[in-house]
Amino acid sequence: MPEDSMTITGVIPPMITPFTQDGGLDLKAHVANISRWNKTGLRGYLVLGSNSEAVYLNEREKLSLIEQTRENASSNHLILAGTGMESTRETIHLTKEAAKAGAHAALIITPAFYQAQMKDEAQARHFQAIADASPIPTLMYNVTKYTGINLSPRVVEVLSQHPNIIGMKDSSGSIPQLIQYQKAAAKGFNLLVGTASAWYPALTLGVTGAIMALANCAPEECVRVQQWFNEGRTTEAEALYRRLFPANQAVTATYGIAGLKYACTLRGYEGGFVRSPLPELNGPQPAEVKDILKEAGLLR
Amino acid sequence: MPEDSMTITGVIPPMITPFTQDGGLDLKAHVANISRWNKTGLRGYLVLGSNSEAVYLNEREKLSLIEQTRENASSNHLILAGTGMESTRETIHLTKEAAKAGAHAALIITPAFYQAQMKDEAQARHFQAIADASPIPTLMYNVTKYTGINLSPRVVEVLSQHPNIIGMKDSSGSIPQLIQYQKAAAKGFNLLVGTASAWYPALTLGVTGAIMALANCAPEECVRVQQWFNEGRTTEAEALYRRLFPANQAVTATYGIAGLKYACTLRGYEGGFVRSPLPELNGPQPAEVKDILKEAGLLR
Amino acid sequence: MPEDSMTITGVIPPMITPFTQDGGLDLKAHVANISRWNKTGLRGYLVLGSNSEAVYLNEREKLSLIEQTRENASSNHLILAGTGMESTRETIHLTKEAAKAGAHAALIITPAFYQAQMKDEAQARHFQAIADASPIPTLMYNVTKYTGINLSPRVVEVLSQHPNIIGMKDSSGSIPQLIQYQKAAAKGFNLLVGTASAWYPALTLGVTGAIMALANCAPEECVRVQQWFNEGRTTEAEALYRRLFPANQAVTATYGIAGLKYACTLRGYEGGFVRSPLPELNGPQPAEVKDILKEAGLLR
Amino acid sequence: MPEDSMTITGVIPPMITPFTQDGGLDLKAHVANISRWNKTGLRGYLVLGSNSEAVYLNEREKLSLIEQTRENASSNHLILAGTGMESTRETIHLTKEAAKAGAHAALIITPAFYQAQMKDEAQARHFQAIADASPIPTLMYNVTKYTGINLSPRVVEVLSQHPNIIGMKDSSGSIPQLIQYQKAAAKGFNLLVGTASAWYPALTLGVTGAIMALANCAPEECVRVQQWFNEGRTTEAEALYRRLFPANQAVTATYGIAGLKYACTLRGYEGGFVRSPLPELNGPQPAEVKDILKEAGLLR
Repeated sequence: MPEDSMTITGVIPPMITPFTQDGGLDLKAHVANISRWNKTGLRGYLVLGSNSEAVYLNEREKLSLIEQTRENASSNHLILAGTGMESTRETIHLTKEAAKAGAHAALIITPAFYQAQMKDEAQARHFQAIADASPIPTLMYNVTKYTGINLSPRVVEVLSQHPNIIGMKDSSGSIPQLIQYQKAAAKGFNLLVGTASAWYPALTLGVTGAIMALANCAPEECVRVQQWFNEGRTTEAEALYRRLFPANQAVTATYGIAGLKYACTLRGYEGGFVRSPLPELNGPQPAEVKDILKEAGLLR
Repeated sequence: MPEDSMTITGVIPPMITPFTQDGGLDLKAHVANISRWNKTGLRGYLVLGSNSEAVYLNEREKLSLIEQTRENASSNHLILAGTGMESTRETIHLTKEAAKAGAHAALIITPAFYQAQMKDEAQARHFQAIADASPIPTLMYNVTKYTGINLSPRVVEVLSQHPNIIGMKDSSGSIPQLIQYQKAAAKGFNLLVGTASAWYPALTLGVTGAIMALANCAPEECVRVQQWFNEGRTTEAEALYRRLFPANQAVTATYGIAGLKYACTLRGYEGGFVRSPLPELNGPQPAEVKDILKEAGLLR
Repeated sequence: MPEDSMTITGVIPPMITPFTQDGGLDLKAHVANISRWNKTGLRGYLVLGSNSEAVYLNEREKLSLIEQTRENASSNHLILAGTGMESTRETIHLTKEAAKAGAHAALIITPAFYQAQMKDEAQARHFQAIADASPIPTLMYNVTKYTGINLSPRVVEVLSQHPNIIGMKDSSGSIPQLIQYQKAAAKGFNLLVGTASAWYPALTLGVTGAIMALANCAPEECVRVQQWFNEGRTTEAEALYRRLFPANQAVTATYGIAGLKYACTLRGYEGGFVRSPLPELNGPQPAEVKDILKEAGLLR
Repeated sequence: MPEDSMTITGVIPPMITPFTQDGGLDLKAHVANISRWNKTGLRGYLVLGSNSEAVYLNEREKLSLIEQTRENASSNHLILAGTGMESTRETIHLTKEAAKAGAHAALIITPAFYQAQMKDEAQARHFQAIADASPIPTLMYNVTKYTGINLSPRVVEVLSQHPNIIGMKDSSGSIPQLIQYQKAAAKGFNLLVGTASAWYPALTLGVTGAIMALANCAPEECVRVQQWFNEGRTTEAEALYRRLFPANQAVTATYGIAGLKYACTLRGYEGGFVRSPLPELNGPQPAEVKDILKEAGLLR
């Protein structure tokens, strides 16, 4: 594990997972992507995030991805792995396997299937049991648009005090709530922004780490926003952020993962195919994505 | 497979899955339950439904449950298995394994994680690919409260024509939509009601099959509603249905699976524990469930 | 007031409100509609329902509509008026004015603007204060799709005991909840179905009154479903209900009030225009509505 | 109208409307509040906003409030009036009356009752017709938590070009969407933040006007955040904003308008009573509000 891994600063992509046309896992393409990403100033990698189509992968595939990522990343890269399952038991199992496969820390999504029962208290028991059992540090993952669950600042306050819960990725997109989380969380807790759409506002509020889809296809640019901000070049940082904004909308909300993968392909990465039932882009969509990347200065 | 299995008439419980206190799968308790249920007039069993905490089980556990159910059920019982996963690929894999393990047909939940992308067309491609590949007949499972997805009558119309999609469990609870499904579906398509709260109204509209949580702890009673209705004793059927109604609310909406399992225990079955993060009943809740069962005539 | 008005049995249309092309209230058209409806076997009329675009009318217009309806209805018709406003105070004011204008009873929608605060208790205080002050009997109006509010069976239980709250129009469309309301409500409480999509199922459960949009353009047919059901011709009643079902979907969910008004025009009533910002039908929509009415046997 | 009124910079409270215990409008208390607010550096006043319980007022009361506000405000104060009704017609009527009563500009809420029909196009027709007819400039009011409607950046782009639509109050609380609005809106369009929870982040993004509930009970503090920010004292501005944040949560989300009014009373204003069916604070709530204000430095 990188020495200063307890403080997570910088940009991390929730890595896309390239598939072949028949839906097979394309590890070669994955490795090719890593070697390009290695040169872009990223802080590390998230394997098995939402944008990795993690819910579509079986355990064997998941562990291969972690192994390959660890093996091909630079030695100073932090390797996070999404190991959340619906049950506490299966999450603990997968987290332990992920640790063996080389993950430095585990990102655990809020369980959500029995939504009406998954209140703060159930979430707290879940995360605490996992943190107790996990050989590696854990982070919570709050992503309401996929789960329908929103961790309250109150439960974050409690959980942030657990020595093995070192942070949270918040993909709710709510800046006001982020401020509440900041007030609630224990000192040293890593509050990470989960969407590029909140990247610059989060920086102005003292957040220093982000895990965001856009970093797959525009890693240098995402990193640059932070560098410029840190150097006091806030006008330029904000301008770049605003220029990237529509591209981020495209590769997340509008066109989903297929759009993100196509944007990666356009920028020289191995986007590959999505797995069914996710739909591929169709009709005018590829041209639309291209135009949006051009306008964002990501393509000529 | 039972000879007339293409027509699914009667009551089927989405079987609870008993766990030991430490969260282990309690197959012995499961088998004990089956031998009691075998004497109650049920049409068959659903292994791995929502009420089975299927999302909390790993593949090995899932297959054991199917095997044990098939082995211990009566020979005329229909064995359905919930084999839906988020990806088409993993669903096909599990469906094939389930068939080997003894399932007569597979119940496939609508994929839901990438909700904004899981429109009718994506659902159609998913179900068709699975039905094409499955060695056993398949049924769709529409359960909006857990998935946020509602299959439109239009897509049901299309899918009901696939020779290997023989029915649908509709747990939306919407009677008006059930009527639309009836109009839309191909002849011979098995439209099954997924909640006891709609059981009597569905009978009056010609629906003849149901998969419902209440049938775990009140199988004879659920079966009797149908028998009386069929014999023209509609007043008595309706009265029994109304008497059971609050018990059904308790073991589904109000107290969730922990409530259902406790009700099973109270009625002589092996309810066992729930798996974390599902919460167990606490405080006054067990007494409340008891009172509701008493009022429904299910306990003295 | 009709002598037996405390028992509301039969079909009541939430009357459309015809407007001229420039948005003016077309009272002449309204009166013309009433004289046709008078011959169709309806139990009475609801002025100022959701389908009457009541939220688009000022007080003067509302009272004119009540007066004209009372004046032109047959003497045995029950005249209900929608008098719910967001505040208790304004609702009481309008209810008193409506009584003076000739309404026999008032239908009060659940207040909804400050949704997070409009829990059961606030609803109870609202309805009780209005019932206390109203010179005419009142009914509650539960219409979740417009308000986001759903009255719990528990609060209906309490409110149904108020001597001046004589019933409820439930437009939630939920048959299971209707059964809970039946169990909860005091004896003699008028539980009215608020959508034609639930009409036949409600009849089989002992509900005997309905207020439904479809009754604007198909009053005889809606009445006939009930007559046939009452005469024991349940097969024919159900068949007619199923035939009408798609027409009901069209004039409510799919095409909204503009669709309902156009269907009225096609069937010889004065549909008139909708008021802005409601959109008129456009493009292929009028032809689609026509086709649906034809298929339902409502047009040749 | 103040000369530079087309540019709205600074803090504006959506004024509370004090009621007497029996629900009567307390204009004297309203005037007393204005004379205190006049000394606090506010840019102007919004009469008839959501926090003014505008939906609970009749037209006569609304116009009195506008008149009294205009009469008692300082001459350089901008007077905005919330004149949105569900229909275009009634909104135009009230806007004209509001102009006569002294409003400088009108804030128009998105119509929402027939939600499924209130898409972008319907919203556009509504706002354009009102702007065409209004004798005073108009602003749109986007407040999803009360309406369920969210104006898309695309429709804001179109509407911002209308010469008589000069701005929008956005109470969605979404900073990423605010950035999209900024990109979409025409030059000179006044994008106003509608919640104190977004005040500091909005300032960092170049937004310079806000209409926010907290400004009722903490006007100087809200103004000071902006002044300090403008003077480059960003650390102090941010710190004050963070200190006020929990108080803002209390007087909006947690305790609603009753909480806001009580906070006003605690700070020397005339909070008065809420109108039914809004609930007053009860039990431990007043003490809780007090504690929160103390912690925010708003009370000793």
